[in-house]
Amino acid sequence: MSPSANPVRLGVLGLGRAFTLMLPTFMADSRVKLVAAFDPRPDARTAFAQTFGGRVHESAEAVCADPDVEWVYVATPHQMHAEQVQLAARHGKHVLVEKPMALSLADCAKMIDVCEVAGTQLIVGHSHSFNAPVLLARQLIDSGAFGRVCMVHAMQYTDFLYRPRRPEELDTAQGGGVVFSQAAHQVDIVRLLAGGEVSSVRALTGRWDPTRPTEGAYSALLTFANGAFASATYNGYGFYDTDLLMDGVGEMGRPKSRDAHYQTRVRMKTVTDEAQEAAVKTERNFGGSLFTLAATEAPDACQHFGPVLVSCEHGDLRLTPRGVQVFDENGSRFVPAVVPAVPRAEVIDELWTVARESRVPLHGGRWSQATVEVCLALLESQRAGQDIMLKHQVALPRH
Amino acid sequence: MSPSANPVRLGVLGLGRAFTLMLPTFMADSRVKLVAAFDPRPDARTAFAQTFGGRVHESAEAVCADPDVEWVYVATPHQMHAEQVQLAARHGKHVLVEKPMALSLADCAKMIDVCEVAGTQLIVGHSHSFNAPVLLARQLIDSGAFGRVCMVHAMQYTDFLYRPRRPEELDTAQGGGVVFSQAAHQVDIVRLLAGGEVSSVRALTGRWDPTRPTEGAYSALLTFANGAFASATYNGYGFYDTDLLMDGVGEMGRPKSRDAHYQTRVRMKTVTDEAQEAAVKTERNFGGSLFTLAATEAPDACQHFGPVLVSCEHGDLRLTPRGVQVFDENGSRFVPAVVPAVPRAEVIDELWTVARESRVPLHGGRWSQATVEVCLALLESQRAGQDIMLKHQVALPRH
Repeated sequence: MSPSANPVRLGVLGLGRAFTLMLPTFMADSRVKLVAAFDPRPDARTAFAQTFGGRVHESAEAVCADPDVEWVYVATPHQMHAEQVQLAARHGKHVLVEKPMALSLADCAKMIDVCEVAGTQLIVGHSHSFNAPVLLARQLIDSGAFGRVCMVHAMQYTDFLYRPRRPEELDTAQGGGVVFSQAAHQVDIVRLLAGGEVSSVRALTGRWDPTRPTEGAYSALLTFANGAFASATYNGYGFYDTDLLMDGVGEMGRPKSRDAHYQTRVRMKTVTDEAQEAAVKTERNFGGSLFTLAATEAPDACQHFGPVLVSCEHGDLRLTPRGVQVFDENGSRFVPAVVPAVPRAEVIDELWTVARESRVPLHGGRWSQATVEVCLALLESQRAGQDIMLKHQVALPRH
Repeated sequence: MSPSANPVRLGVLGLGRAFTLMLPTFMADSRVKLVAAFDPRPDARTAFAQTFGGRVHESAEAVCADPDVEWVYVATPHQMHAEQVQLAARHGKHVLVEKPMALSLADCAKMIDVCEVAGTQLIVGHSHSFNAPVLLARQLIDSGAFGRVCMVHAMQYTDFLYRPRRPEELDTAQGGGVVFSQAAHQVDIVRLLAGGEVSSVRALTGRWDPTRPTEGAYSALLTFANGAFASATYNGYGFYDTDLLMDGVGEMGRPKSRDAHYQTRVRMKTVTDEAQEAAVKTERNFGGSLFTLAATEAPDACQHFGPVLVSCEHGDLRLTPRGVQVFDENGSRFVPAVVPAVPRAEVIDELWTVARESRVPLHGGRWSQATVEVCLALLESQRAGQDIMLKHQVALPRH
């Protein structure tokens, strides 16, 4: 049976930014079908019904109760993930939930428990650790050709803080700032490459713009149970753009203007107040007046999350938007990744293997709880001024 | 009076690697004259006399006692710096001593004290914090145009551990490994850019090759009294080469082969034992059978120490081998550094202003002791598994 004859039937909670970013994937990948949705914006519901012919509901619970829904895709704001994942599981639905999984370890634990009791699957994503070059680097490491991983170095300078935001996205207590939103990507990548089990975290975070009072930058040192260590730095106030080191390819795998960060700040100057800023963001999302469907033609590069270097005993791996550059005792060579025909198809790959092939998810509940634990430790280390020892870490599952 | 009419008269202790690297500078810069030297290798002494017409002595003390010597340039192995600086000062000589200043804070303190009592000047260098783009970035920061420094990010991947070494260079207790030899550069640069006064250090160090049993890599987080923080990573086992991010210009300011690190490892395979390896190194130095004078024509780029990013409130500064790329609210622009006509002329600039213009050294004893304190804290933080608080830090002197 071809995948399209039995697509995974998704019910969507939240048609906002996360959904908008996944939309090209859903539209182009025949392994999934969007059958139902809820969003508080009537325009978004109408657009959903028109675009997908799916049912629109008046509540999240109604989506979860819809008998045609097989998996619930939770794409609501961060602080709603925990409750909605449990709701879905209690209705017997499997769940794909956007990162960050939740804002507390207690919430993560509840989500895992409720899914286990219900016997439902849980995948956390999209995150950039799904990207093909990351998975390719992991395969190269697993080949054993380079010996053990000794050090991972990751850095990313973006305009994150100056993209249009809702007020809660600038409030750490509500899951705002770069630690919840961006470390969730970077830490997941670093864990995936270094083996998963973080022992300790020491981090410094920066709040440099009093008009956007949340963490906009961090730098962290992670130690791993296997002896590796990692350095991860993120600057969401970036005037500089690390995509200049990524062949000029942006996070979404598309060519990026060299002055994109400058243009972001120019646009920010047109913002007059919080409400207008939030409205601009909303109107760019699915169903909004400024919505445009992202290009759906196959990109020639993968999505990425900035420069990442993996130093092994016998070689260094440099992730690029198109694969992995290997530097070892034989010199240097490029190992191309298979650029997915549909952006973020890697998420549907994992969803499909779990839903239709009974495979264990790579980005399951316990794996993703461990990433949340590291993110929380970044904040806690800044507060406490010392190392934070971790307790909920797990190794990469045998996928 | 032109500088060449009254050059600073240097007596040299040690005609080895450090001297060999400074040789093109000494030969081309008329502000200095080499008048005396001591090295245990007779061939080196003979070459010195032939090349410079200077006096060769049979001991370090004899150089220090030579009435024609005005400044003593201490370029011996790390572990000899402390004693020889004191020897020079007790003979009333000013001192230029190679980095690292010494291997312990107690030794640094003695050196400072003895020089103060003797009324002699003390400059520590060359280090790469003398490089013109570093000093240019500092000037740009001091202009106030970018607000305060919030974060510095520095990284450097080299073949350090696989260049020919003497056994002591692979023994941390004798000042070997990348912390003493290379953090001395990187930490000095980071301090110079972030303001100088480090409050705390958390670092992880790597010893990944049991055949070269010293620190070959580290990653560190530094906090500063002014609220800035920094991340510094060094990998001396690098298969990868961060000079690929520096316009293909090597540390010495010259074009560098893309496969230089591979070639280093190929050469290392021809090494049969410690003694042969040390001999190879010695023979490449001044007076040795494999010595060749480095190119003296003016390079078209400055010396550098890998990618360095300074994030200020109102702009990011990216150091390049030819200047500073500025990214700010007006977009991006390049501010060229004045590439010195003689490599490392910046060291002679500082020497000259101190010796002939009564200026305070930028890289004086207390400044450099503070850099040694940070380097020692890198090692101590790895041992203790926690932050190390610092006590001997000083701000950048008003130069």
